Amino acid sequence: MSIKITLPDNSIKEFDAGVSTLDVAKSIANSLAKKAVAGKYNGQLIGLNDALSADGSLEIITKDSDEGLNVLRQTGAFVLAAAIKALHPEVRLGEGEAADDGFYYDTDREDGQLTIDQLPAIDAKMKEIIKANAPIEKISMSKADAKKAFADEPYKVQLIDEIKGDEVNGFKLGDFCDFEESVLLPNLKDLKHFKLLSVAGAYWQGKSSNPMLQRIYATAYYKEADLEEDGKRRQEAKERDHRVIGRDLDLFFVDPKVGAGLPYWMPKGATIRRIIERYIIDKEIADGYEHVYTPVLMNLDAYKTSGHWDHYRDDMFPPMDMGDGEMLELRPMNCPSHIQIFKHHIRSYRELPLRIAELGMMHRYEKSGALSGLQRVREMTLNDGHTFVALDQVQDEFKKILKLIMAVYEDFNISDYTFRLSYRDPKNTAKYFDDDEMWTRSQSMLKGAMDDLGLDYYEAEGEAAFYGPKLDIQTKTALGNEETMSTIQLDFMLPERFDLSYVGADGENHRPVMIHRGIVGTMERFIAYLTEIYKGAFPTWLAPTQIELIPVSLDQHMDYAKLLKDKMLKAGLRVELDSRNEQMGYKIREAQTQKIPYTVVVGDKEVDSAAVSVRRYGESAGEEMPANLFIESVEAEIKNYSRDGKHKRGEGQAQLDK
Amino acid sequence: MSIKITLPDNSIKEFDAGVSTLDVAKSIANSLAKKAVAGKYNGQLIGLNDALSADGSLEIITKDSDEGLNVLRQTGAFVLAAAIKALHPEVRLGEGEAADDGFYYDTDREDGQLTIDQLPAIDAKMKEIIKANAPIEKISMSKADAKKAFADEPYKVQLIDEIKGDEVNGFKLGDFCDFEESVLLPNLKDLKHFKLLSVAGAYWQGKSSNPMLQRIYATAYYKEADLEEDGKRRQEAKERDHRVIGRDLDLFFVDPKVGAGLPYWMPKGATIRRIIERYIIDKEIADGYEHVYTPVLMNLDAYKTSGHWDHYRDDMFPPMDMGDGEMLELRPMNCPSHIQIFKHHIRSYRELPLRIAELGMMHRYEKSGALSGLQRVREMTLNDGHTFVALDQVQDEFKKILKLIMAVYEDFNISDYTFRLSYRDPKNTAKYFDDDEMWTRSQSMLKGAMDDLGLDYYEAEGEAAFYGPKLDIQTKTALGNEETMSTIQLDFMLPERFDLSYVGADGENHRPVMIHRGIVGTMERFIAYLTEIYKGAFPTWLAPTQIELIPVSLDQHMDYAKLLKDKMLKAGLRVELDSRNEQMGYKIREAQTQKIPYTVVVGDKEVDSAAVSVRRYGESAGEEMPANLFIESVEAEIKNYSRDGKHKRGEGQAQLDK
Repeated sequence: MSIKITLPDNSIKEFDAGVSTLDVAKSIANSLAKKAVAGKYNGQLIGLNDALSADGSLEIITKDSDEGLNVLRQTGAFVLAAAIKALHPEVRLGEGEAADDGFYYDTDREDGQLTIDQLPAIDAKMKEIIKANAPIEKISMSKADAKKAFADEPYKVQLIDEIKGDEVNGFKLGDFCDFEESVLLPNLKDLKHFKLLSVAGAYWQGKSSNPMLQRIYATAYYKEADLEEDGKRRQEAKERDHRVIGRDLDLFFVDPKVGAGLPYWMPKGATIRRIIERYIIDKEIADGYEHVYTPVLMNLDAYKTSGHWDHYRDDMFPPMDMGDGEMLELRPMNCPSHIQIFKHHIRSYRELPLRIAELGMMHRYEKSGALSGLQRVREMTLNDGHTFVALDQVQDEFKKILKLIMAVYEDFNISDYTFRLSYRDPKNTAKYFDDDEMWTRSQSMLKGAMDDLGLDYYEAEGEAAFYGPKLDIQTKTALGNEETMSTIQLDFMLPERFDLSYVGADGENHRPVMIHRGIVGTMERFIAYLTEIYKGAFPTWLAPTQIELIPVSLDQHMDYAKLLKDKMLKAGLRVELDSRNEQMGYKIREAQTQKIPYTVVVGDKEVDSAAVSVRRYGESAGEEMPANLFIESVEAEIKNYSRDGKHKRGEGQAQLDK
Repeated sequence: MSIKITLPDNSIKEFDAGVSTLDVAKSIANSLAKKAVAGKYNGQLIGLNDALSADGSLEIITKDSDEGLNVLRQTGAFVLAAAIKALHPEVRLGEGEAADDGFYYDTDREDGQLTIDQLPAIDAKMKEIIKANAPIEKISMSKADAKKAFADEPYKVQLIDEIKGDEVNGFKLGDFCDFEESVLLPNLKDLKHFKLLSVAGAYWQGKSSNPMLQRIYATAYYKEADLEEDGKRRQEAKERDHRVIGRDLDLFFVDPKVGAGLPYWMPKGATIRRIIERYIIDKEIADGYEHVYTPVLMNLDAYKTSGHWDHYRDDMFPPMDMGDGEMLELRPMNCPSHIQIFKHHIRSYRELPLRIAELGMMHRYEKSGALSGLQRVREMTLNDGHTFVALDQVQDEFKKILKLIMAVYEDFNISDYTFRLSYRDPKNTAKYFDDDEMWTRSQSMLKGAMDDLGLDYYEAEGEAAFYGPKLDIQTKTALGNEETMSTIQLDFMLPERFDLSYVGADGENHRPVMIHRGIVGTMERFIAYLTEIYKGAFPTWLAPTQIELIPVSLDQHMDYAKLLKDKMLKAGLRVELDSRNEQMGYKIREAQTQKIPYTVVVGDKEVDSAAVSVRRYGESAGEEMPANLFIESVEAEIKNYSRDGKHKRGEGQAQLDK
């Protein structure tokens, strides 16, 4: 019997029934067969050697695709488990699988979990298994048989119970067998470039009420160069990890015992945050915003009106019963608070655009497992703002906000960003807030504004929120991940729900459009981001300590050092005088470790000539200059938000200037 | 039969049984009898004509005492009720009595409550009753009879039920009778100088779950001059009421529907608050404090450790169950948070005094009836600080804090304050934290510091907290009430409970002393206070708008006005240009109503000579001066925190300077 196989280019080929993906690949080209690691048959992943018995479509999965890499890592997880069981038969296996950047397996051992010290032996055992290259067999059995086979593995038994249907599929390699629905490599010779990375606790099935297992992390690539590249990236990530830098520079800490996801800002981290907060408030006020303070608590009814309670409840904190029939809720966003400000007066068209801004503290419930440093927290302070405009003001206001965002990026030296304009899905307008004219006009205003400004942007149809179109500004983190830094979102819905209106020139009531906008996002996430892009070496205007002052001799040069310190303090600089009884070299090294922008040493020569010997962070050589000149240059640097004394222009700003 | 009456001077006089207080007064002096309004017999208040039948001590209550005034007002409440019932027999009476500054009666009427419009008729009826001067009879009956007599008065019936014992005492005046345990004037001729003030809703018995009655407020004095004085004070209070000014100047609002006791700071109020926050943070940092940010939420366990949960629970918000066994609590104070900062590192004696400060948001549960504007709120931000010191550093640190407080007062022009030093009760030391040496040394250090600084202070034995001695700094509010503005409190207990330690010079662990200190208290209360003392006319450095710029003609003087505005903005001034198409006089009046420090008018003359015509708030005449000079003078005024252009010296600071 022959079957018809449709290939991705829509060509149809005939084969004998029982043909494998590998056979099909060979029939096309030998080079393809060499790269092939699996197939996708009628949309479902299958093994490279699995027999095809009916007509269908087939895609050949190769090593250079994401899915191909996934097959390698799935196989890695399988071999990792086999090696663990070979060395530690008493270990009980949890789940193991390919992940975004590698693979892992969860393990549990009664008398102490596996540790990082055991990884070399496991690594050696994996290499031994791979070298032996025994065939991996597909196996299949009934649930009942599977549960018997895994009687010693309680986690596996639970997983088997959770499988739908009665049949359980898996793989066997020598004595070891594991069941999984995934696809593995047909043999192990391709699993050469792998690396065991780390171990860390992980709740069984990700639920914090479950026992804590030990997860072994690893990664694998088809090419040695890719593995090396990955190693470098991980090293870089470690060096830039804001949690590590935050600890080393004493910026902040989180202690789950006093509150999971609730950061404590130590004095140095608090200094950075305070400077940024003042900077952004002043910038916004100068741009026409009115800053307010509104309570972090609000009557739950407001969130019922806004719709948050219906759609967003899982991310909210539990309400508090205050008696007198009042239920209070820690706010998950500031929009309803700013709506109160708008509604407090009868508004006239003359007041629009009305720009309300706040450093608004909010609380969101995140699963404890998802919390991470300053990046994912439960209490956060958002650089939030809401502009209330008439529909015909949308375009101008949108431009104004965008220019403000780009000016702020410029000051923080953020130049690597892209624009993403999200519209409603034109094929499914019923899904969205029901006002065709509003959508059509506002979408074209947003697009027009981008074109006017001469900016490049990606148009994402169908990615708008239910309540209106938006622009997201995507930055790259230090590790190359894309992240939404800023957003400008039109909202037609909340003005409706809260019945907002203003009196127009015609004396009639009109409904305003609300624009939600964030510039630098939350203080927590923004400072995590900055810590990573700056690698903890904050530019002078943000550095908690800007100048470390070191006298060569405590006996002879302290008077001059103190004089200098006073001058610097008067100039508003953050200076520390190291008067400890330690070696000068030690002090200089410590200032470097703390990534202080300027280390200033003063000895005989400096005292004589009213000078300073200045070493900029990261540079090996110092420079001699008059003390006054140094202070003036640092002042100017701070005033210009310069980085490294140079004021780089952001690309976006450069685009605007054209 | 004769009885022996002991008078306050311990003299004993003999009288016939049945003698009255009035008789006793007459036997001493006729002038005393004229002033007498009641007696205090064996410590209990009795009517002036009540018969004494046994030996006992007697004090004669006169018109010029607080208790005498109370009797007058109690009588006022009785007559008020009689007048109300005479005019509105359908009204049901609640409670009525003398209060701190007058008297009131609660009323309830099914078809609409009494309003302010009915007060003149009630006033007239009271005067009629007083003029008739019918005798007030004492009555007494059983509870059952009383309930029958008051069958139409459900509130009275409830009150009768709540009386202990079976007998109910009261008074009768013509047809009207009321029962109360208090004492009234024997006749009404002394109730001449009274005034009905206002009406306002009040929950029955103060419970918000009860129905809302209508309370009629009034006051009374023996002397006409006192009533007049009271009227002036009330007028003054109204003009200074921060809630009224806050509304008129659009500084803040509270809307119980979105959250009782949760203020919204409108842009102008927020500006004042932001300036004060930045001021106090900068001042503290310059004084050696390290500012931090800590979460508003904390694990409930910390408040169990601190003792707050045991002793302070009623003032705390309900805990939130976060799952995973975590109970989170909105913090009622910041001490445990700052303790976390201290504990985060191993501390050395070299780091002490370690000064941690924060604008710390806190939440306290206040009964909804107690909430008032910014004065009594449920969410507040405290200018908080905690210093960790070795015991022998207490005196110096205490002085340093005190100097900082006085310097801040100076900048805010607060000069009317007194010091109150609180010690433990030397006769009952067991009531306090158990460390005699700590108490003895620290109390003498505090006293020594005050003496060193040459400051006057009041010593309050037995008024220390359980955990340590303290200094309170009492200011007077605009209405003359004493209020604790600042506090410096030593705390021996929390370091013990949280097991705090530092490594001493000897390499051993030592327990630090913690000093709680507040300088300006909460932002909410401080700004309420300032609003009242400034009557809303904030000094230039705090004023939301500092300069109102008014062109004489929109056609001819706008260019110059805009130029000036830009110059002022560049100088960092908060300026508004009134470009509305309104009369100049109207604009000037409005700037005065808004209490803007400077109204600047520019016309032909000013344009020609690069000048401005300046009118300072509250002054009727303007002044012509060069524009640059004006801008410079305002800058200097702001820099010096001057009030009205003059920088008054606080008395306390003057004391320090001696």
